[in-house]
Amino acid sequence: MVEHNPAQLDAVFHALGDATRRKMLRALTQGERTVSQLAEPFDMSLAAASKHIKALESAGLIHREVRGRTHMCRLAPAPLAGAHDWLSFYERFWTDHLDALERLLREDDARKQSAPARKSPAPKRGVKS
Amino acid sequence: MVEHNPAQLDAVFHALGDATRRKMLRALTQGERTVSQLAEPFDMSLAAASKHIKALESAGLIHREVRGRTHMCRLAPAPLAGAHDWLSFYERFWTDHLDALERLLREDDARKQSAPARKSPAPKRGVKS
Repeated sequence: MVEHNPAQLDAVFHALGDATRRKMLRALTQGERTVSQLAEPFDMSLAAASKHIKALESAGLIHREVRGRTHMCRLAPAPLAGAHDWLSFYERFWTDHLDALERLLREDDARKQSAPARKSPAPKRGVKS
Repeated sequence: MVEHNPAQLDAVFHALGDATRRKMLRALTQGERTVSQLAEPFDMSLAAASKHIKALESAGLIHREVRGRTHMCRLAPAPLAGAHDWLSFYERFWTDHLDALERLLREDDARKQSAPARKSPAPKRGVKS
């Protein structure tokens, strides 16, 4: 089993717990972006957007490079692998859970299909001429 | 592609962004627990532990059942599948990234191995007697 660094998992999951930050990561899958480009789609101040970028940066999910007066950001995807791996441990639990739900639904369907047949009287047949 | 509910992802990732809450989830993989049992391993007040449990509950990761005076908690793993699936999108990015790192390391090793041969003079051979 992979050893997980609790402080890094804290930072990564915290960074992902916000839709704006998740959208910024998604934008970076298209290539590197300046801070202003990352902030542009959101209805918020540049200061507010910068705070989100800093949260991503301190989780190690963004690498920032200063080129003259421009801050270029690019995706640093490696810490996402740790979070994904942490979650994978629970896969058998959600699979079992979903299997159980599906079984219940199937049993419920089967009950509904057999119930009317027992309750309703046999359909009347037209008298043969 | 699975449609993700942003509010649920916010709540799930937020809930996972804390080592205590992750440990509580892990404890619940062993079976259901009372609130006190969940709180017991942690050096914190029952009130503080309850706050963590509430964060897990509002993310839909814990199902709480009141039985008389006891609150029983059990793992509700389904929302973890959504978070795992969201992260899976980034798998190709971290794989490419790790592949690139590995390539760099290999190239660096190769350079180190070939460099001394070029730099250092040929070892002197003893004069044959």
